[in-house]
Amino acid sequence: MNQNIFENEFTDGIHEECGVFGIYDLDGGEVASSIYYGLFALQHRGQESCGIAVSDTKGPKGKVLAYKDMGLVNEVFTPETLDKLNGNIGIGHVRYSTAGSSSRENAQPLVLNYVKGTLGIAHNGNLINAIELRKELEYTGAIFQTTIDSEVIAYHIARERLNCGAVEQAVARAMDKIKGAYSLIVMSPRKLIGARDPYGFKPLCVGKRDNAYVLASETCALDAVGAEFIRDVLPGEIVTINSDGIVSDTSRCNQKISRCIFEYIYFARPDSTFDGVSVYNSRIMAGRLLAKLHPVEADLVVGVPESGNDAALGYSLETDIPYGKAFVKNNYVGRTFIKPKQNQRETSVRIKLNVLKEVVKDKRIIMIDDSIVRGTTSARIVGMLKAAGAKEVHVRISSPPFKYPCYFGTDIPSGDQLIATGHTIEEIRNMIGADSLGYLEVETLPELIDEGMTFCDGCFTGNYPMEPPEDDIRGEYER
Amino acid sequence: MNQNIFENEFTDGIHEECGVFGIYDLDGGEVASSIYYGLFALQHRGQESCGIAVSDTKGPKGKVLAYKDMGLVNEVFTPETLDKLNGNIGIGHVRYSTAGSSSRENAQPLVLNYVKGTLGIAHNGNLINAIELRKELEYTGAIFQTTIDSEVIAYHIARERLNCGAVEQAVARAMDKIKGAYSLIVMSPRKLIGARDPYGFKPLCVGKRDNAYVLASETCALDAVGAEFIRDVLPGEIVTINSDGIVSDTSRCNQKISRCIFEYIYFARPDSTFDGVSVYNSRIMAGRLLAKLHPVEADLVVGVPESGNDAALGYSLETDIPYGKAFVKNNYVGRTFIKPKQNQRETSVRIKLNVLKEVVKDKRIIMIDDSIVRGTTSARIVGMLKAAGAKEVHVRISSPPFKYPCYFGTDIPSGDQLIATGHTIEEIRNMIGADSLGYLEVETLPELIDEGMTFCDGCFTGNYPMEPPEDDIRGEYER
Amino acid sequence: MNQNIFENEFTDGIHEECGVFGIYDLDGGEVASSIYYGLFALQHRGQESCGIAVSDTKGPKGKVLAYKDMGLVNEVFTPETLDKLNGNIGIGHVRYSTAGSSSRENAQPLVLNYVKGTLGIAHNGNLINAIELRKELEYTGAIFQTTIDSEVIAYHIARERLNCGAVEQAVARAMDKIKGAYSLIVMSPRKLIGARDPYGFKPLCVGKRDNAYVLASETCALDAVGAEFIRDVLPGEIVTINSDGIVSDTSRCNQKISRCIFEYIYFARPDSTFDGVSVYNSRIMAGRLLAKLHPVEADLVVGVPESGNDAALGYSLETDIPYGKAFVKNNYVGRTFIKPKQNQRETSVRIKLNVLKEVVKDKRIIMIDDSIVRGTTSARIVGMLKAAGAKEVHVRISSPPFKYPCYFGTDIPSGDQLIATGHTIEEIRNMIGADSLGYLEVETLPELIDEGMTFCDGCFTGNYPMEPPEDDIRGEYER
Amino acid sequence: MNQNIFENEFTDGIHEECGVFGIYDLDGGEVASSIYYGLFALQHRGQESCGIAVSDTKGPKGKVLAYKDMGLVNEVFTPETLDKLNGNIGIGHVRYSTAGSSSRENAQPLVLNYVKGTLGIAHNGNLINAIELRKELEYTGAIFQTTIDSEVIAYHIARERLNCGAVEQAVARAMDKIKGAYSLIVMSPRKLIGARDPYGFKPLCVGKRDNAYVLASETCALDAVGAEFIRDVLPGEIVTINSDGIVSDTSRCNQKISRCIFEYIYFARPDSTFDGVSVYNSRIMAGRLLAKLHPVEADLVVGVPESGNDAALGYSLETDIPYGKAFVKNNYVGRTFIKPKQNQRETSVRIKLNVLKEVVKDKRIIMIDDSIVRGTTSARIVGMLKAAGAKEVHVRISSPPFKYPCYFGTDIPSGDQLIATGHTIEEIRNMIGADSLGYLEVETLPELIDEGMTFCDGCFTGNYPMEPPEDDIRGEYER
Repeated sequence: MNQNIFENEFTDGIHEECGVFGIYDLDGGEVASSIYYGLFALQHRGQESCGIAVSDTKGPKGKVLAYKDMGLVNEVFTPETLDKLNGNIGIGHVRYSTAGSSSRENAQPLVLNYVKGTLGIAHNGNLINAIELRKELEYTGAIFQTTIDSEVIAYHIARERLNCGAVEQAVARAMDKIKGAYSLIVMSPRKLIGARDPYGFKPLCVGKRDNAYVLASETCALDAVGAEFIRDVLPGEIVTINSDGIVSDTSRCNQKISRCIFEYIYFARPDSTFDGVSVYNSRIMAGRLLAKLHPVEADLVVGVPESGNDAALGYSLETDIPYGKAFVKNNYVGRTFIKPKQNQRETSVRIKLNVLKEVVKDKRIIMIDDSIVRGTTSARIVGMLKAAGAKEVHVRISSPPFKYPCYFGTDIPSGDQLIATGHTIEEIRNMIGADSLGYLEVETLPELIDEGMTFCDGCFTGNYPMEPPEDDIRGEYER
Repeated sequence: MNQNIFENEFTDGIHEECGVFGIYDLDGGEVASSIYYGLFALQHRGQESCGIAVSDTKGPKGKVLAYKDMGLVNEVFTPETLDKLNGNIGIGHVRYSTAGSSSRENAQPLVLNYVKGTLGIAHNGNLINAIELRKELEYTGAIFQTTIDSEVIAYHIARERLNCGAVEQAVARAMDKIKGAYSLIVMSPRKLIGARDPYGFKPLCVGKRDNAYVLASETCALDAVGAEFIRDVLPGEIVTINSDGIVSDTSRCNQKISRCIFEYIYFARPDSTFDGVSVYNSRIMAGRLLAKLHPVEADLVVGVPESGNDAALGYSLETDIPYGKAFVKNNYVGRTFIKPKQNQRETSVRIKLNVLKEVVKDKRIIMIDDSIVRGTTSARIVGMLKAAGAKEVHVRISSPPFKYPCYFGTDIPSGDQLIATGHTIEEIRNMIGADSLGYLEVETLPELIDEGMTFCDGCFTGNYPMEPPEDDIRGEYER
Repeated sequence: MNQNIFENEFTDGIHEECGVFGIYDLDGGEVASSIYYGLFALQHRGQESCGIAVSDTKGPKGKVLAYKDMGLVNEVFTPETLDKLNGNIGIGHVRYSTAGSSSRENAQPLVLNYVKGTLGIAHNGNLINAIELRKELEYTGAIFQTTIDSEVIAYHIARERLNCGAVEQAVARAMDKIKGAYSLIVMSPRKLIGARDPYGFKPLCVGKRDNAYVLASETCALDAVGAEFIRDVLPGEIVTINSDGIVSDTSRCNQKISRCIFEYIYFARPDSTFDGVSVYNSRIMAGRLLAKLHPVEADLVVGVPESGNDAALGYSLETDIPYGKAFVKNNYVGRTFIKPKQNQRETSVRIKLNVLKEVVKDKRIIMIDDSIVRGTTSARIVGMLKAAGAKEVHVRISSPPFKYPCYFGTDIPSGDQLIATGHTIEEIRNMIGADSLGYLEVETLPELIDEGMTFCDGCFTGNYPMEPPEDDIRGEYER
Repeated sequence: MNQNIFENEFTDGIHEECGVFGIYDLDGGEVASSIYYGLFALQHRGQESCGIAVSDTKGPKGKVLAYKDMGLVNEVFTPETLDKLNGNIGIGHVRYSTAGSSSRENAQPLVLNYVKGTLGIAHNGNLINAIELRKELEYTGAIFQTTIDSEVIAYHIARERLNCGAVEQAVARAMDKIKGAYSLIVMSPRKLIGARDPYGFKPLCVGKRDNAYVLASETCALDAVGAEFIRDVLPGEIVTINSDGIVSDTSRCNQKISRCIFEYIYFARPDSTFDGVSVYNSRIMAGRLLAKLHPVEADLVVGVPESGNDAALGYSLETDIPYGKAFVKNNYVGRTFIKPKQNQRETSVRIKLNVLKEVVKDKRIIMIDDSIVRGTTSARIVGMLKAAGAKEVHVRISSPPFKYPCYFGTDIPSGDQLIATGHTIEEIRNMIGADSLGYLEVETLPELIDEGMTFCDGCFTGNYPMEPPEDDIRGEYER
């Protein structure tokens, strides 16, 4: 719990997927507990560490109270801690990172002091020129105490601020330097600022509750705190909330938008809506598309819980093959679950997932999952269905095959760890023991969202909206 | 975490709902980790405390290693703790009790020393003559250090053992004294014993993995540890596992069976099977029955997650009204969740459950839940659907109305706290704001299970299979 | 921290040294925090576990609130926990036991329910017929959940209570059955009872603060809570405090008294007074006696901190050889100190104790310690003095040589682990590397206390005030 | 435990008193456990937080493993944590800070990445131009994540390093910028560097164990790890340990030395030696001086434990008035001790300290303490002696009266909180209830140390070795 040993502290933890939340109550009401509930709603975006930082816009300038640690929102915050976090403006963060790179030092929000007082920063995404910028900064004498991009962004804001009249201008100029995916919430003593990269990789939205403005990664967090959805922050836009209300700077909204399509397919909560498209509807549509692309005669459509269920429902709606439940998921298997050792008879998959034998026995099953990464889990699940007596198992995947790494904030590994990179679909089918296997096709992805909406499909096609670094920057520091 | 303050230590905590697990590896293999995974699979039966006790049948007689504490299996056990629990025979327990009565002292298994060495006891159920027996024992000088029935049972086994040649005979004679619901696992230095009360209120089954025998509350725990289901322990039966294998004593199997029907409707995991009936199928059938009893024109059938989903699917299958998802549940809201205060804008229900607005908007919704206790939660959920734009909300409950308390191991409160006791269905409909409301009828309950199977419906009818105590014993000690 | 794994749960932990505290505020004031501070003052008597149990004499009969756990008073209790322990009557306990036998189950006070309601018991001492009594009880069907003598005592009180009009009479009759050393505090719903075994092995005293009566192992605990010392409980006496005040039963005060002389020499805090004799004065006198028995020419008298310092001062006062400080003790080395491994350059002794080189260099040192058990620590300390340049090191021990085990509540091991059992003083001197070595003589022990006071010197002479069990009962259950 | 809420994060915590430790094993041996034991020996210098950072000089450059947290060395480190900290070069830190400013963020060592890889910094002392330097740095775009001086120092090293061929040169140039008191240990991937400010306020010494070099605040830490004392780092000196051995840069050793005299009087452990003078001898001498300056007829000299004991012994040696023990200190009152509330009968002083009544009764007592800050504690202790029957209490203080704040690393508050600032000695005597009161005189302080040694007596005289900041910088950020 208290682990802050960091191996290669300055090397990894770059490819995280996170959630951000911010709130400014213009009437002066306390905001810490709303941040707490907002982070709860965003917990699926990061389960390793979390944090809250608050300030009182009527209090002494620059007094920031913060608390962050490794663990779930549930575990990190107690009523006593929340009660101490007094303030009417605040930001929160939940974080995920790949194993080994997680450390308490890297927990967000980042809180710092600079020439104009204090600054809090919460960031979701991944900069592709972070290493480059760090080196540049180091060559002017900068020191780094974390490995998170937020520290690089903070330095740029701090430096630009020397020549800017307002912090939001410094944020804007910093945005001209940083490249990649970022949804950013910045708290200065008197302002709450939200910014989204011009490509719009990662979501960010604005809500309102009485006289309080809310910024959040997903709309489900607005619902959780009783705020009304106002609009998405535009790709490239900077919104600044101060005591007078909300101001927008859209001068950087000039890029062809490259939404992360995987937010719709997998990351986001189904009750969220991004850029006008319901995540749930996207997934239903993915199931319908799969049904059209890869029809098969069967008795039952089932999803691999939880993420496969919605597409399974879509497949069923499209085909009239009954939707059913084949798996029971153990919801108690949490972070501290002790994994079975090699020589034990139990397996992690079986402990997490059990098959409803009487449902699948003697049935032809269509099993929907959102993706296949290494293939081992899929093989085990197919095996469990067969062992339970399923006559046929037809696997359908509600995304195209992963073939390329993601450099924009998603933990998709490099190609050699992706089953789809080196194998044909038939080979994969064989490896996972399915009777048939069908993926969604890249060409059909536009149907998941609204007409005219553009997105990034780099992990499927290798065509990235901006040049990825020559080397896989995600391993740079590790050499 | 470390709380063992006990208010009215000797008064409450009597009506718990628990899960039990036991294993004896005749080949001498270590069993602690299998108990750990078995308890994981039974975690839904009790989330307050848990424990494991093991012994080595080849080691010095009576050496028992045990560990128990407040918390989830996940939280209580670490790899280091598990590694220390060496033994090839062992039992485990997960416990739930009503608020206030939980205390570390009451965690199970109970481990004790008596005239013949050591004994470990894990118990699920509720004795109706526990108070009476405690008083009798006290009048012979007994002392009690917990408020759990296991201690009463232990005393009886210890006393009977003075005149019995074998511990299983002492268990048998103890069973002649205790009345009520119990599924019991007893570990002596060289034997593992399972017993089920003659009414068969609570489930208990036997499984096998290679040369290891397993006893568990539910079959899903057998699946979790890779054991094969052999059979249910019969109501009234005592099974004894020793180095020679398994022996059965069915001399007490003479009672009309009164299975707890609510295990099928709500308690058990859908992937479990009791007395030959799949829990999942029961719930699908409950939905189908509801559809026949209370049909209504609508656009969508939805379940209140998780427990309402299966019956909703059954309703949909029966009616061809599409099954859908109206709610997203936040799986991260755990034991230590900080509840919103009265004056906060957030509510517990909204934080745990969010409505998929685009799904329910302008739709006529059939909403299935497993039960209504006080009615407040139902009212909030119906309200959320309406606020999201649902045109109509028709509530269907996959059980008959609760009108009477349960004395047999279920936390159903006394009548004055049950909305159905003092109100007509129309009144309840009005109170929860539904457009229509339909319950399952007591007469149709037999259809949930197999022909000829008998069960207890006391909580619906007040007709208990045995005379309940004159006073509500569950409050006896509190006065 | 949460360790309650118990190895040989029913076997060991019999030879503990503990501290007890009780308070009854007749005016109804809260007592939990006074118990907390009282236990603090008694912490030196037991550092493994501690606990507090309270009751409200005006509240519902038998409502007991308790909290206990492994750890120091400091670690176990938080302000929140103390605040919940509401009551005007209560008892507390600190416990020590030999390694391996410590477990959360064995923490005291023992709280239980019996025929007349609730009972809390805190016990310091060791019964020599505990095994025998346990067996007897087991043969009538008793079950044991701990390995502490309190449970045996509790059973006897409970059984006797069936035929007694008052709990103090039951305590009295139980005293007729139990044999050995015990200072006992019992809390019933309306009474606080203190009892001391007829031999008076272990101390127990009565104090008063306004209208509150206090019972404690040592007078230093009275000082800590601002209570005035009234008197010692007499060996064999039972004092009962109820709403009318204090009542005494001295009908069992008929034994030749056998105070544990080691309480004066080592166990007790120097600011405590037992049976009229100041512990500090005893130790000064021990030093003076040593000076007379074993004079030697030297430059400096030093004590091994902390316990050797007082006798060193006595030696200096008697001889006019200057008293000095040769060692600095590291007060931060606590329970969780990580011991150096075999292959490390550091040693536990050196980390705990450092020598003041400039003080001892070229000096002839008289080094006073309270005892030598195995001799290894003494050898290391003498070695450190020599390495720091001491010309001569004359070791003086303020007690006679340990040659026999203690059966009465002190953790003195059996003879084969005692250096003095198999070796002459000259051999020991040689083994620890001292230039000379002198012990106190058994014959002179009476001078440590007042004329006519009698005591137990069994650990030095093997002459026990009552027949010890044939076998070393302390290992009985371990075979 | 997990508290990292920071109030005025960028405002306070500047005036800490700390301990530092560093070790480089040229033979490649593991050093983490030696750092652990070294920090143990320095624990008295800081009890709020501690940390260890290690690196392997043969491993990949810049791989640093670190662990730090709030708490004692005992509490923060477990065997598992220590085992993970692999490396043959490392630094450690213990930290104290005034209440309110403590936070996990401020725990040391500071570990960071900069242009040349990684750097670890541990610092004891206080810069008087830290605020100024922070502002300067901020005006070039620097950001600060802590409020500790180490971060300021780190920035300067990082910037200077851009133009230096070696890290020790960068440290040297940084020393030309920073002003105030500092003993510094810096770890680069291949070097361990120790530096002491030219005034020599704070101690730092070098030791050796086989082929491992050790740096430590006090010699007692060398003893703890079995290292031999080599020499003190000179005021202004930089020592650099690399694979070839140790190199010294004395080019900044040009200042009149201003040792903190309070290290001798109070801070340091008596078994340490600074700049050739034994701390213990200093204190004995302080007692002797007091005896000469303020003689009085009396029966007993006693010290207020622990820090007054040595001077009491000196007073006794000088006067032949017997040395005695009047107080017993409760060693278990630790960090988490629950303080008595206002309305409770217990007081913190009485719980921590008890009087040996039989020792002081009817006696004329000379009571030695090291200092009086606010006077309230002294008043309580004198009161306790009188209540125990002391006829007279003559208080002697082994330092001159505090009248001025300290700006150089000591937590001496500003004048308005110091009893000696606004009152005459006679007034103070009256306020604490003593029969007479005598302080050490500033003029006699040179006698505590060796002839010719110079020191800082600013807290007594207001004459600081360098101009203190105009405003009390220690409160600067708080306004």
